[in-house]
Amino acid sequence: MKLMRVGNPGKEVPAILDSQGIIRDLSAHVSDIDGNLFADDSVKRIAGIDLSSLPAIDKNVRIGPAISKVGKFICVGLNYADHAAESGMDVPSEPVLFMKATSSIIGPNDTVELPPASKKSDWEVELGVVIGKETKYVSEKDALAHIAGYCVINDLSEREFQIEKEGQWCKGKGCDTFGPIGPYLVTTDEITDSNELDIWLELNGERVQNGNTRTMVYKVPFLVSYISQFMSLQPGDIISTGTPPGVGLGFNPPKYLKEGDVMRLGISGLGEQQQKVERYKA
Amino acid sequence: MKLMRVGNPGKEVPAILDSQGIIRDLSAHVSDIDGNLFADDSVKRIAGIDLSSLPAIDKNVRIGPAISKVGKFICVGLNYADHAAESGMDVPSEPVLFMKATSSIIGPNDTVELPPASKKSDWEVELGVVIGKETKYVSEKDALAHIAGYCVINDLSEREFQIEKEGQWCKGKGCDTFGPIGPYLVTTDEITDSNELDIWLELNGERVQNGNTRTMVYKVPFLVSYISQFMSLQPGDIISTGTPPGVGLGFNPPKYLKEGDVMRLGISGLGEQQQKVERYKA
Repeated sequence: MKLMRVGNPGKEVPAILDSQGIIRDLSAHVSDIDGNLFADDSVKRIAGIDLSSLPAIDKNVRIGPAISKVGKFICVGLNYADHAAESGMDVPSEPVLFMKATSSIIGPNDTVELPPASKKSDWEVELGVVIGKETKYVSEKDALAHIAGYCVINDLSEREFQIEKEGQWCKGKGCDTFGPIGPYLVTTDEITDSNELDIWLELNGERVQNGNTRTMVYKVPFLVSYISQFMSLQPGDIISTGTPPGVGLGFNPPKYLKEGDVMRLGISGLGEQQQKVERYKA
Repeated sequence: MKLMRVGNPGKEVPAILDSQGIIRDLSAHVSDIDGNLFADDSVKRIAGIDLSSLPAIDKNVRIGPAISKVGKFICVGLNYADHAAESGMDVPSEPVLFMKATSSIIGPNDTVELPPASKKSDWEVELGVVIGKETKYVSEKDALAHIAGYCVINDLSEREFQIEKEGQWCKGKGCDTFGPIGPYLVTTDEITDSNELDIWLELNGERVQNGNTRTMVYKVPFLVSYISQFMSLQPGDIISTGTPPGVGLGFNPPKYLKEGDVMRLGISGLGEQQQKVERYKA
């Protein structure tokens, strides 16, 4: 199923996309799409609902971040061999992890705001993994059972803040609006193989990223298991699993976001996002 | 005032320490000690309460993390010149930032659990700054008005996970139980100068860290302003401002935590923590 959150920022209601592409209001059945939903049996309960009985919502409604109250937003760096090459870095011998501020999260089609001082803001389409239950020292074999579903993420990155400043990538990863998530959380029953998904991003209509998750160095079950050796994961935590080649940093010369740019990005089965770029004005 | 959270894990109630050292139950007046409390005028409201009218709580109650629902746990690295030297690193030309998983947060006297694979777990007493209102591109001059209060933090760090593994310190900083916070949040009216606070840590009764916040390279108002250039801060977010010299990594040979160790740590005016060390068993 495709779970969503729709409505004005901070006022979103839980919803579900039915097989006809109609957005249906779920608020009579669950309070929100968040970790609590996965922690109990609410997802199973939703699966039993006759969706045609739910109120339809105008398809032009704003779509919010697919998940609410995200506790941790953990990202994997350099997880596609050819993206590592374009970044001038080796494929790491084990996953590179960094954290993205949860305050960066926005809806899939919200405006991306360049920080006033930003000259090197960049795009990164990524497969997001949403954790469904408490996960601590889990084995690779058991990891899939800890996943609630998948979503599209744009892991926006300010390269000067990330790489050219003193210490740790989080400076360039957590800027406000740098974490579009959605349009849906797609539950695992619909994505039987996360290793065969087309993943792409277009900048102003030009396809700049065009990959497939089969070229990921470290696969989803390994990543969930690996991360759980360093920190426990809770329902609603998100893992962003790295980006395929074609980011702005890899162009020669590098190519960065400017006001008026439009990004369109998607993953097969997980829907599409579209963001316009503006510069933040205080 | 000294705001606290007491009771069993996950069941804490809000409380306040009165001038006689008696813990008083605040739950008739506020729902929790968290960002929502600072965002409205609840702190001002608490200041108007006759504390002797509040029920006293047994002083042997477990103390929980001083702040609930922490959105971001942001840390400053190498912010004491002599600690940078003992770590074999230069004082950075601007603050080093990293993020600590919020799932690492525990009460000030809870047991610290070494991860099964940990050989190099280390201590770091730090001054914690708790954000009191929305903070985005704030100036250094205005920063103090964005602070709700201060607290003691032990920024526990697994050095192998942090430094010897591929990429980004968060691997060694966010292990479960690696973020004791408290015993209290002390509001800014009680701490008029955060640059003159003794800060210390004892390992098994031996004083290993013995500093004063006056030797911090980047001061609190600068840090709040600096961080807000990269990400907005919300009420209840915590900034841990770096540790003075005397961590285990700086010993020759290095000295790391082992089962049965006891850490005692504190900051003048902010109270003390004490943690016993055990090894996690699945």
